[in-house]
Amino acid sequence: MIRTELTAGLAEAVRLSQPEDAIDAMREAKKGLLDFTAASFAGREEKGIQKLLHLVEEEGGTPLVPVIGQGKKAAPLQSALLNGFIAHALDFDDVHSDVRGHPSAVILPALIASAAARESDERLLGAYIVGVEVMARLGESIGSLHYEKGWHNTGTLGAIAAACAVGYAEELTQEELEKAIGFAATQSAGMRVQFGTEMKPLHAGLAAQSGLLAVKLAQSDVGGTRTALDGEKGFFGLYGDVDKAQTTLLSHWGEPWRIVKPGLWFKIYPFCSAAHHAADAIRQLISQEAISADNTERIEVVFPPGGDAALTARSPKTGEEGRFSVEYVIALALHGQKLIAEHFNSDPIPNHMHAAMRHIQRVYDNRIQPASQAVPKGRFTIVRAFLSDGRICEARVDCPKGAPGNGLSKEDVKEKLKSALPSDVQKAAHIIGAIERADMKEFLSHLD
Amino acid sequence: MIRTELTAGLAEAVRLSQPEDAIDAMREAKKGLLDFTAASFAGREEKGIQKLLHLVEEEGGTPLVPVIGQGKKAAPLQSALLNGFIAHALDFDDVHSDVRGHPSAVILPALIASAAARESDERLLGAYIVGVEVMARLGESIGSLHYEKGWHNTGTLGAIAAACAVGYAEELTQEELEKAIGFAATQSAGMRVQFGTEMKPLHAGLAAQSGLLAVKLAQSDVGGTRTALDGEKGFFGLYGDVDKAQTTLLSHWGEPWRIVKPGLWFKIYPFCSAAHHAADAIRQLISQEAISADNTERIEVVFPPGGDAALTARSPKTGEEGRFSVEYVIALALHGQKLIAEHFNSDPIPNHMHAAMRHIQRVYDNRIQPASQAVPKGRFTIVRAFLSDGRICEARVDCPKGAPGNGLSKEDVKEKLKSALPSDVQKAAHIIGAIERADMKEFLSHLD
Repeated sequence: MIRTELTAGLAEAVRLSQPEDAIDAMREAKKGLLDFTAASFAGREEKGIQKLLHLVEEEGGTPLVPVIGQGKKAAPLQSALLNGFIAHALDFDDVHSDVRGHPSAVILPALIASAAARESDERLLGAYIVGVEVMARLGESIGSLHYEKGWHNTGTLGAIAAACAVGYAEELTQEELEKAIGFAATQSAGMRVQFGTEMKPLHAGLAAQSGLLAVKLAQSDVGGTRTALDGEKGFFGLYGDVDKAQTTLLSHWGEPWRIVKPGLWFKIYPFCSAAHHAADAIRQLISQEAISADNTERIEVVFPPGGDAALTARSPKTGEEGRFSVEYVIALALHGQKLIAEHFNSDPIPNHMHAAMRHIQRVYDNRIQPASQAVPKGRFTIVRAFLSDGRICEARVDCPKGAPGNGLSKEDVKEKLKSALPSDVQKAAHIIGAIERADMKEFLSHLD
Repeated sequence: MIRTELTAGLAEAVRLSQPEDAIDAMREAKKGLLDFTAASFAGREEKGIQKLLHLVEEEGGTPLVPVIGQGKKAAPLQSALLNGFIAHALDFDDVHSDVRGHPSAVILPALIASAAARESDERLLGAYIVGVEVMARLGESIGSLHYEKGWHNTGTLGAIAAACAVGYAEELTQEELEKAIGFAATQSAGMRVQFGTEMKPLHAGLAAQSGLLAVKLAQSDVGGTRTALDGEKGFFGLYGDVDKAQTTLLSHWGEPWRIVKPGLWFKIYPFCSAAHHAADAIRQLISQEAISADNTERIEVVFPPGGDAALTARSPKTGEEGRFSVEYVIALALHGQKLIAEHFNSDPIPNHMHAAMRHIQRVYDNRIQPASQAVPKGRFTIVRAFLSDGRICEARVDCPKGAPGNGLSKEDVKEKLKSALPSDVQKAAHIIGAIERADMKEFLSHLD
């Protein structure tokens, strides 16, 4: 890095990136795009989408960008809002451990809006790699206290990442990019108190929209600061820790690309990733130890302290709230239910599940050594079942299925898309083919 | 108050408000609307407006709401963005000392969008009173550290205030209002590092848009938390101080209405209110002591510590940056220039002004007792001129012209509107008449 200022340095790093030359990064970007599309189509019938579509239609707008799975188009900024919501609606989209949030559900809706509206999509995959790079580095730089205080990283970091991604795609100048970063930073928002409601996925849509707007403002020559990330009153000073950012934001940029290492985590369950360890563990106990609702008296779920911060619902009322409840996930599995989307919608949770959840208790243990391959770093979950015959069985998971190190293959992700489009095999095949050939025009033509 | 929870309590206080019965509050609301209109028309030719209009037109949308002074209409959410920017473009719009920011530039664009789109404007003035009440109380409750850390209160508090105002106007239910407060809170943003750029007034537009969107989301039955202001991870915990909010947010609601006491501060100069004390003082010295650029060697400007926090530009490059520079304001006056909008646009500041600014120094003195009538509380500014003949003259201002206690009369505000529309006397007369009769339909019909 030539520049040491955070904003100028980030803009320069983005601008001079050449992710298209990195074969491994491009491969992961295609996989990420495929998984994003799968998660979005899987969520395309969520009730919230119709509510938002209605609201957007009242505003009107020039329909230029496909709204995923809805058979219609919307104006660019509106499409970013809608597609961000759709992608994150089921919490089935990827996460990234550096981000502690959802990069693709913010970055890709902004990029899709940019590409479709300009009919220029050559740099889409490269821009996606750059966007993930930015969001991962923002996440690392902002520090863990940011999330723990109550911010929702998907929202607060997503706008800047989306602005940088679109800025790369649209080849902004250094000055435009510095300003766009500031326009996004000054819109950064999103509170974790919205977890378990439809507003949580809407944070992804709002961040995508803010990031896209930031680029449009810069291109329109609107005036703004060029140093929004710097100093005590800048973004890192205000939302995090500016000293930490100085050492982590820009060092070893793209070496390797963060989309490759640690890499995106593609989910096999449609709920918060913090409950995936427990989900794998309980399924293991069920299949190997034959535990069930009938022979289990109570269950302890052991986390490292703070490891369940995202799991805000201990007695969720709806399946939607249950996306953030390890108790609900375990109770479902114990009652022989599949961990699929239909159990995580806005319907009320039935009474027998509430009864079952009351026998599941969270425990924290800071004496247990996390595994070196743990994802996220330092995390583990032990599910310990106390059976009616006096036996105690337990299973520990450090790196759940789907997480980097135990990741999904390209074929697994293709299957995820096909499962999301059970009645439209051809559409799934078209999308898979288009992404494999990196034909983004063709990809976009099948998206609505 | 029956309810002690902050979110539910605020929603209830808003919902049960009857500001229309308070004659003094309605009088101030009319004056505030008149001043808002004057500030907006005065700024209607700012360069930034065309940039934003172009951007909005690319998106398209159903033209339902007048865009002030532009001879056109825009879709509701777009109009809120545009009109917020226009109202705050010159920094000539009102401030409120409890808010430490600009209430009307956020609240009224949201209310105008709501009223024009629904063709229902009966509750507009009452809703404005409620919005100012909310924003003043949010400002008091969030604590002074919020602003000092780097937040821009107009943005961070404005969205919630606008949501409450529109929520009152559109008669939301208790649940809808609680959710709307949360939808606005989770979009709260705006950093002071954007001061001195076009992004600062755009913060007002973004907050107006976020507040309006919050109400639309609640009306569309989108799911969200009903307790966003409460608890350590809620809005006050995250952005301020939840304990302070418990004691200040709701006590003595509307007794008297905050729009009456301390009241809105209507500006006589188009720059940051923190420089108005110094502007009055230097003008006093010029007229009473006959000081000028020729006979003045240097100037000290004395503040209480932190009293110049908003005046972020010590050597501004453009007139726009000069809105936040006490040095520029004093240098202009000293050189016989009027303190009017044309000196505060995006043109570069000429060299002789830079030379003059270098002889103006800020000094802080915590031994000086603030006056009881000081606005804002605890503030004063002393301008001390060291003349070439050895004399030292000084003038102290605690409550500048326009501020509550030294406020503008209704006639003064009418004059401000007339000055803003020099070539359209009839339009000014129509607007004045419509506001006096509280005929909001007529008012809206003259706004574009």
